Amino acid sequence: MKFSNFFIPTLKESPSDVKMRSHDLMIRSGMIRQETSGIYSWMPLGFKVLKKIIDKIELLHDDNGINQILMPTIQSSDIWRISNRYDTYGKEMLRISDRNNKDLLYGPTNEEMITAIGKQYIKSYKNLPRKFYHIQTKFRDEIRPRFGVMRAREFLMKDAYSFDIDNVNGESTYCDFFKLYLKIFSQLGIPIIPVRALSGEIGGKLSHEFHLIVSSGESEIFLDNKLLNQSFGSLTLNQILNLNSYTDEYFKNIENKKNLEKFTSIELGHIFLFGTKYSSSFNFYIDSEKGKVMPYMGSYGIGISRIPAAVIEFSNDKDGIIWPKELSPFSVHLININIDDSECSEFCEKLYNEIKERNIDVIYDDRNERPGKKFSDADLIGIPLQIICGNAYSKNREISFLKRFNKEQINIGEERVMDKLLEMTGYKK
Amino acid sequence: MKFSNFFIPTLKESPSDVKMRSHDLMIRSGMIRQETSGIYSWMPLGFKVLKKIIDKIELLHDDNGINQILMPTIQSSDIWRISNRYDTYGKEMLRISDRNNKDLLYGPTNEEMITAIGKQYIKSYKNLPRKFYHIQTKFRDEIRPRFGVMRAREFLMKDAYSFDIDNVNGESTYCDFFKLYLKIFSQLGIPIIPVRALSGEIGGKLSHEFHLIVSSGESEIFLDNKLLNQSFGSLTLNQILNLNSYTDEYFKNIENKKNLEKFTSIELGHIFLFGTKYSSSFNFYIDSEKGKVMPYMGSYGIGISRIPAAVIEFSNDKDGIIWPKELSPFSVHLININIDDSECSEFCEKLYNEIKERNIDVIYDDRNERPGKKFSDADLIGIPLQIICGNAYSKNREISFLKRFNKEQINIGEERVMDKLLEMTGYKK
Repeated sequence: MKFSNFFIPTLKESPSDVKMRSHDLMIRSGMIRQETSGIYSWMPLGFKVLKKIIDKIELLHDDNGINQILMPTIQSSDIWRISNRYDTYGKEMLRISDRNNKDLLYGPTNEEMITAIGKQYIKSYKNLPRKFYHIQTKFRDEIRPRFGVMRAREFLMKDAYSFDIDNVNGESTYCDFFKLYLKIFSQLGIPIIPVRALSGEIGGKLSHEFHLIVSSGESEIFLDNKLLNQSFGSLTLNQILNLNSYTDEYFKNIENKKNLEKFTSIELGHIFLFGTKYSSSFNFYIDSEKGKVMPYMGSYGIGISRIPAAVIEFSNDKDGIIWPKELSPFSVHLININIDDSECSEFCEKLYNEIKERNIDVIYDDRNERPGKKFSDADLIGIPLQIICGNAYSKNREISFLKRFNKEQINIGEERVMDKLLEMTGYKK
Repeated sequence: MKFSNFFIPTLKESPSDVKMRSHDLMIRSGMIRQETSGIYSWMPLGFKVLKKIIDKIELLHDDNGINQILMPTIQSSDIWRISNRYDTYGKEMLRISDRNNKDLLYGPTNEEMITAIGKQYIKSYKNLPRKFYHIQTKFRDEIRPRFGVMRAREFLMKDAYSFDIDNVNGESTYCDFFKLYLKIFSQLGIPIIPVRALSGEIGGKLSHEFHLIVSSGESEIFLDNKLLNQSFGSLTLNQILNLNSYTDEYFKNIENKKNLEKFTSIELGHIFLFGTKYSSSFNFYIDSEKGKVMPYMGSYGIGISRIPAAVIEFSNDKDGIIWPKELSPFSVHLININIDDSECSEFCEKLYNEIKERNIDVIYDDRNERPGKKFSDADLIGIPLQIICGNAYSKNREISFLKRFNKEQINIGEERVMDKLLEMTGYKK
């Protein structure tokens, strides 16, 4: 992609009320734009990151036999009255009257709707297990929206729901989702910590959150610091339950607080096995070999639009964002410093096309801008590898490679550029 | 995909208030479920079709240098007051008060928001042209929602917006979108007719709609029937303007009505070049070589969630849907009739895996259901090619190929099945 054709409106300064580093960097790198309090547009660079996350989540859910659906954003109040949450949910629920004065609401979550769907279609134990997910906009009317997309009112969420015949099968499905979440975050380059959580509003007994530890995080979690370097991928249900890591609310209720250290963090995922809470309120029974039974259900959320902010909060320096390669909007940032030098521009154009032909996602800064502006934009946007073509090319046919994370810079003769690029982007080991 | 693992809750009957063929078929094939008046969930089969449309639209927009963004569903009333549409838009706009009694609304369209975005970031003619699109849920509080997703209140739309330096460049961009739309509909297998339209609510002078002619359509268009077999791909702007096809509103205002025949149809796309209407109300000026000028703008919509319904309306028979191959949720429907015959089941399992290995999208009906149920479900769901394994396999090692559109059936020896399949699905000519 040529920079001139990909709209990245970088800014020198953020609005004065911006208080979190990731918020500042997302505004200044032209990733997002505030439309009104707690409501944002995703500009091309921001949307590209969002799309990478969505694609990865879709791929791994599909691979695990979870069917993608799309439930609407607007829901009838009727189903929320059945679960008794219409009155208890509070002011975070955006309540709406339509032109016929019917009570609607902007869905903050979808347990009620998926239960109504299940009740209509799932009649027998032979139809189980069933797992569904959708990626849909949610709205929670936060009293104090802040930190950009980190605590927005309108946000994008992946929520999945499961139906099982009994508790044993429900726990097995819960365990599958636990492992799926570890895989998703791992493939997004995010070092996630699973922590035991209370179920709160949703209900049920088994619940975990998935946190990214950052010093500026709003959440507090407590854990045995041995867990910081642990891989959780091979855990069984029993080990999952005995993990020595907790949300602050859960922590209050445990007796043995020894070896537990406090960390600040950002919550990126939350899973619940709430059992028959909603099947019960919806009178949702199915035929089984033991007669009529209520299905066991769970729900599994990932805060998609919060992930880019959390990752930036975790990985930045004074000059801007430092993307992990898994989430970076581009793999390579090619910068032409001598735009008026025809040899330099011809080389860049040729290299740009060669990189594209190898299906490596490259952004080429072909703009008619000062070198200083191009360098500061590149550092701000934070693509892991910068390739700079300037005076060293005009003099010695050399190109600079700069690693964004440590600013290490080396010069390479033009004949070795593609090989070096393949090596540094991991396309060739 | 195995049928047992892909949730398709087919129904024998639709609710009694279903009056349109596509609505009936979408409900009965388990593609959609009504949640409340004019608001639907997309179930796995329906969502798969929707995703195909989205992927194609994204691909062709990206290829044309149109940057994908994501604007929010909820908008502040402020920007609609600037354009003066907050009061004029009427009751179709879903108006909302948040917990602080601030006036919000569920966006029915995004001209105001994109103009505010353009005004903040685009300062110079050097930043032009710019083209953006997003795929986002819209809400229009129809007084009489009906016909399922054909005239829903909540729906999915692709809307694109363009900024140009002057009218000449704006018209050229408009022409590019006109051709892009022809290409999109062609690649979706939809024989579209472009018709000249009035601009209505959006404003401006140049506007076309893109219609699919079906006898049950709600729209009326007037055209020279010579156009029915014309390819519109190579038209220039002047020829586009002189096309002898019109919406009913436009038709009322033209003088020479000769040779114009009336057709009923469904509107699937609508493009507008509204010029400076919004840049003017937003006081949006940019620097140009001629001093301060107002950018010329256009907007370009496709009603994504209406497309599956329109195509079904266009292509069905008494037994169900007949998907064109471009939009079919699967390419092949493999049906195992003798589920209890181990030879038959082994053959099906093997064939299923071989088809998947060739990246052909196949659904395999492995359910423990009566043959009659499997046949009627297959006809209802409408995959173009059915491959049936039953008694002829047990007796003579033969498999039946059935073309959904004409029910033509032939028997093939097992050794020739893959070759025939590749030939019939167009993977091998």
